[in-house]
Amino acid sequence: MKNIFALALFFPFSLFAQTTTFQWQQVAPGVWKATVGKPEKLTLLGVAEIQPRVEALQKLGTPVFPNELKQSTHELTDGKAYLRFPLHKDEQLYGLGLNFKSVQQRGTIKTLHVDHYGGKDDGRTHAPVPFYVSDRGYGVLINSARYVTVYAGSAVRKDSKSPPEEMNRNTQKNWNAQPYSDAVDELVPAPGTEVYVFAGKNAMEVVQRYNLYCGGGTLPPKWGLGFVHRTPTLFTDQQVLQEVKDFEQKGYPLSIIGLEPGWQSHAYPNSFVWDSTRYPQPKPFLDKLLAKNIRANLWINPYVSSHSPIYKDILPYTASHTVWVGVVPDFNLKPARESFKKHFTAQGVDLGVSGYKVDETDGYDRWLWPDIARFPSGYAAEQVRQTYGLQFQKMTVEWFRARNQRTYGLTRATNAGASAMPYVIYNDYYNHKDFITALCNSSFIGVLWTPEARSSKTAEEWLRRMQAVCFSPMAMLNAWASGIKPWTYPEVAEQVKEVMQLRMQLLPYLYTTFAQYHFEGKPPIRAMNLVEGFADAGTVVAGKFDATDNPYAMAVRKDIKDQFMVGDYLLVAPLFAEEPKRRVILPQGKWYDFYTGKYVGGGETIEVDHSAGLDKIPLFVKDGGIIPMIPATLHSPTKDEVLPLTVRYYGAQPGSFNLYDDDGETFDYEKGNFGWTKLEVKDGKGQQLPTQGREWRYGKVSWEYMTR
Amino acid sequence: MKNIFALALFFPFSLFAQTTTFQWQQVAPGVWKATVGKPEKLTLLGVAEIQPRVEALQKLGTPVFPNELKQSTHELTDGKAYLRFPLHKDEQLYGLGLNFKSVQQRGTIKTLHVDHYGGKDDGRTHAPVPFYVSDRGYGVLINSARYVTVYAGSAVRKDSKSPPEEMNRNTQKNWNAQPYSDAVDELVPAPGTEVYVFAGKNAMEVVQRYNLYCGGGTLPPKWGLGFVHRTPTLFTDQQVLQEVKDFEQKGYPLSIIGLEPGWQSHAYPNSFVWDSTRYPQPKPFLDKLLAKNIRANLWINPYVSSHSPIYKDILPYTASHTVWVGVVPDFNLKPARESFKKHFTAQGVDLGVSGYKVDETDGYDRWLWPDIARFPSGYAAEQVRQTYGLQFQKMTVEWFRARNQRTYGLTRATNAGASAMPYVIYNDYYNHKDFITALCNSSFIGVLWTPEARSSKTAEEWLRRMQAVCFSPMAMLNAWASGIKPWTYPEVAEQVKEVMQLRMQLLPYLYTTFAQYHFEGKPPIRAMNLVEGFADAGTVVAGKFDATDNPYAMAVRKDIKDQFMVGDYLLVAPLFAEEPKRRVILPQGKWYDFYTGKYVGGGETIEVDHSAGLDKIPLFVKDGGIIPMIPATLHSPTKDEVLPLTVRYYGAQPGSFNLYDDDGETFDYEKGNFGWTKLEVKDGKGQQLPTQGREWRYGKVSWEYMTR
Repeated sequence: MKNIFALALFFPFSLFAQTTTFQWQQVAPGVWKATVGKPEKLTLLGVAEIQPRVEALQKLGTPVFPNELKQSTHELTDGKAYLRFPLHKDEQLYGLGLNFKSVQQRGTIKTLHVDHYGGKDDGRTHAPVPFYVSDRGYGVLINSARYVTVYAGSAVRKDSKSPPEEMNRNTQKNWNAQPYSDAVDELVPAPGTEVYVFAGKNAMEVVQRYNLYCGGGTLPPKWGLGFVHRTPTLFTDQQVLQEVKDFEQKGYPLSIIGLEPGWQSHAYPNSFVWDSTRYPQPKPFLDKLLAKNIRANLWINPYVSSHSPIYKDILPYTASHTVWVGVVPDFNLKPARESFKKHFTAQGVDLGVSGYKVDETDGYDRWLWPDIARFPSGYAAEQVRQTYGLQFQKMTVEWFRARNQRTYGLTRATNAGASAMPYVIYNDYYNHKDFITALCNSSFIGVLWTPEARSSKTAEEWLRRMQAVCFSPMAMLNAWASGIKPWTYPEVAEQVKEVMQLRMQLLPYLYTTFAQYHFEGKPPIRAMNLVEGFADAGTVVAGKFDATDNPYAMAVRKDIKDQFMVGDYLLVAPLFAEEPKRRVILPQGKWYDFYTGKYVGGGETIEVDHSAGLDKIPLFVKDGGIIPMIPATLHSPTKDEVLPLTVRYYGAQPGSFNLYDDDGETFDYEKGNFGWTKLEVKDGKGQQLPTQGREWRYGKVSWEYMTR
Repeated sequence: MKNIFALALFFPFSLFAQTTTFQWQQVAPGVWKATVGKPEKLTLLGVAEIQPRVEALQKLGTPVFPNELKQSTHELTDGKAYLRFPLHKDEQLYGLGLNFKSVQQRGTIKTLHVDHYGGKDDGRTHAPVPFYVSDRGYGVLINSARYVTVYAGSAVRKDSKSPPEEMNRNTQKNWNAQPYSDAVDELVPAPGTEVYVFAGKNAMEVVQRYNLYCGGGTLPPKWGLGFVHRTPTLFTDQQVLQEVKDFEQKGYPLSIIGLEPGWQSHAYPNSFVWDSTRYPQPKPFLDKLLAKNIRANLWINPYVSSHSPIYKDILPYTASHTVWVGVVPDFNLKPARESFKKHFTAQGVDLGVSGYKVDETDGYDRWLWPDIARFPSGYAAEQVRQTYGLQFQKMTVEWFRARNQRTYGLTRATNAGASAMPYVIYNDYYNHKDFITALCNSSFIGVLWTPEARSSKTAEEWLRRMQAVCFSPMAMLNAWASGIKPWTYPEVAEQVKEVMQLRMQLLPYLYTTFAQYHFEGKPPIRAMNLVEGFADAGTVVAGKFDATDNPYAMAVRKDIKDQFMVGDYLLVAPLFAEEPKRRVILPQGKWYDFYTGKYVGGGETIEVDHSAGLDKIPLFVKDGGIIPMIPATLHSPTKDEVLPLTVRYYGAQPGSFNLYDDDGETFDYEKGNFGWTKLEVKDGKGQQLPTQGREWRYGKVSWEYMTR
């Protein structure tokens, strides 16, 4: 101690910053907030303008503050905030952004930074949400629009009360490259931040609370859940209409047609004006599509061309730097938002455009403004980068809301607070397995992701990608560059059609699953780690020493990241090209083949091989599972369409399913215009209980008892 | 303008920060310094304790301040410094850290961050030196120990006076994903920084000035340039002595034997104490090696085990966090440095240890302290990370200097100001081509790099790697993990021996080349872009569109990064496994085959194929080139050894070579105890002019006129 005091005399200014505990304040049932230092004005939740669903949160219960986090501390130093949250030895962590390679995040280090995903789970991704969920039933959110660095159980303090054992690598074979760390450490490069804690009896309940606090998950329009096809970039109106006709004639479902940059007179940067040669009459063109019950979605990015009619208006509200020579609007300023709103309402929304694909808000670093750019709102370029995608989504939603019209679009960047945003993330990366891992990870952080099909080397790969995307928040073929069609590979054209049709048949189930997202906060796609009865903590495999690739013989955790649940009952285990069989981990309970109703196992790992029929994507249903289905329509049902309902029931356990319905297009559900109808099987008999609420759009209900 | 003023009223606090020009002050001939905001106390050059070689700088000339940089500006905002340096349209930039994939850096974006190189030239590397060199004859150094972000001609300002043309990607085929940017923008995340500018008539002179300002390049001991072999980690003294004997008996040169972690009783973390079972008598063991004229180099990393005798002493001067459970000394504090000095002097240097391999100061992020760690000196973890390798080098050099003894070791981390450090960078990465690119890049930033041979899949690869490493600052076989020997592949054992012997024969040339580094600032290894008569600006190849891998059809610049010069005369074009031929770009003038003296071309691209003899690494000598050589000794010559000298002369032009010599071991050269002897060929006759200075260690001088 003497030495320490002597040192303190020499370095009195700096030696030990004040380390203090948090002052937690309950802000909603099961949700607490604390303030560290001086939080900045621009925050993630602030930009998202979240509106907590207080009633739903109350319904979810009123847990106490998580014991695990009571010893959390923070300090301010070097102009930054350092936060420390304790960890138990066997605790698992999920979340921390849209990762593509790993589900379990304990032991990882990330700087959460809006960027195009570059192949490493290092925090640079489209949704670098600074939120993690613990399997011990809590979640921690850093509400900062800065590049937050997270040491998710990697940093080891000298004064730890549960320090790891010191080992000798020379002689001890079990020497571990990553000694046990008893905390998550976070570095917020700002003079302060808000921190939120979400409680829950398990990881799922934590995620629910997070989503509900952020306004509840988005409820897409029904047409948003149909099939989406994006046409080559320079297609004309006639080519688009022909493409639509081809889908129809060949019997492939289609609900949204996406137009790429060529709809504009100038793009990269954007005029935001219809090109008069390719689209001479936008309104009649859009009307023709709408008459076929097909929506148009328009590609844009935010960078304004000098040829745009809004250029002069917006110029004073743009950043110091350009992107592809286009000016960069500062949407933190109302005049910038108003300028966009006025133009896009008149030239897009009012003409019948249903939504937008908002490109290039993520960066790749070089296709964005630099961090030294200045924004007229005075916010730092870093803060604007972390929130730009979020800001843009929020803005467009309002254009449509003004018409009481839902939208459903695509974004390349988002962040915390996005649960209620009707946007699905996509990117240029294209590893099929990693795309599925991202699907799993989207469920922890309140975002939606589509593993879009874009092209394929082989017919088999094409089928595998098309199968998987049909079990995602947006079933999309993005042919902007390839011009590929669903039927391009004749060998698999029928199987592709079949899975697209299955997507349409499942719409009642999918729509209800999204209603759960909205009303209960349960994500539509669910990583296995959120599923009851799934207790796999991943297998830690001893590191294989390699002087170049693994010189510290670092152990590897084998995640379950290639299967997931859609809603309460459906387990999806996608197949991948050139892998004629795969293993599937079934949670506790009994599980049945979706197609045949046959029992396949429970609480065990099974292998799916050719004998199970590789033409189909492996799908499994939980015992007692009820799956309501409609006929395979070519388009998503309209609000006036009444369709017969087939209710599939699997297994032997009593089961029930609350089928949600509303008009599928407007925000009238917010005024109570929706209905929940209980479908129930008891004593081997199915029944439909009286609808709670006004909405119900089905004709004849038939029951199919799949398990005999 | 009206809008701007209106806006300024709403956001008066933030809109336009003061943008000012620099106040440059000349600090040495051709070197200027400016201060932005409030520079921090800990700087790169400060840690390196550089001692500018003022006389040599004077000798190099007194250029005026570069015109190109007169319009440079800076501003302070968001607690950070933003710097902007103009760029011409056709200007090329080099440097910006030890990059492994690219030589030309214009258009790149990097956050310069000490780290293990992770496969991307993104700024995370072992020597993230914030220094760039322009082919227009100047260099810019940011003397900050922070993670500096550099936009090396990628950011485009809205108010640029030479803005890029706005294009329409829809219709213009020559649309460019990367519009012209007229500046380098740098972001220093600190309230201020020092900036240095180095002038020069070309890139080489800029580099010379930088190196001379940093104290001149290091002059290794002669034994440092011999062959280095590192033994498997748990070798005993007897095994090491046997290994030495094997080298001797088989006739393979050896000057340094490296001991890996197993020399210690505890490692990872370190006891820094000889293991009593593997090395019961260190002094006699080291004496035996020295008697054979072989030096011992010891592996260490800085993290202190509780089993180390210095643990208690150093504990108060260590960081808040541990690395592999070892404490992390804060070498900014004198007691920490003293504690290491005392221990390592007694237990290492005084016993006869010649140098150290300092491992794991780079990070991989997870094998270092986190950025939230606190250091008792009060410096931020980020600052300590950027300077730790530099600090450690500086410290060890002093242990040896106290004995008037040079050292030559290995480091995994360094930074700006390292020119005078007798340390060579190595890492775990192992791509042979990228290793050569790093060799080229090392020449711009005052560091040394070894493309160590570690293992190989095939005999051919082994030969290629061993050939290349023999033309690097440290000719090293690092067998710590593989146990491989130079002769392991019998098919190439003779060719490997031959190139190792050639390395020994070239020692007079190599040692002089290092003397040029020290006295004139010319790097020993030189990227082609530093070579007179080499004017290749790289070929810009139009980007091949690919929706996944290159969605913006970004153009690619083909660098010349697989060949380099060693010293003034020798051009090295390494071969790579499975590539039976390669192209070599010969600068202006005439070039001759090193082995045969035959003319091969000049100012052109030639192809080297099997007929040229693939057993040897392709080497070319400039017209008039003089290469002094000694016989292939097994060990580097001692200070008392007198050897015959063979002087090879190539081509027909009059030529000369100033052969440097000194005792090769001590710092007596700093007191003037060195000699330069001019070897000259005029009118077809070679002569040796009287030695300037006292030192000359050669017997008979014979001339070999290689070109007949």
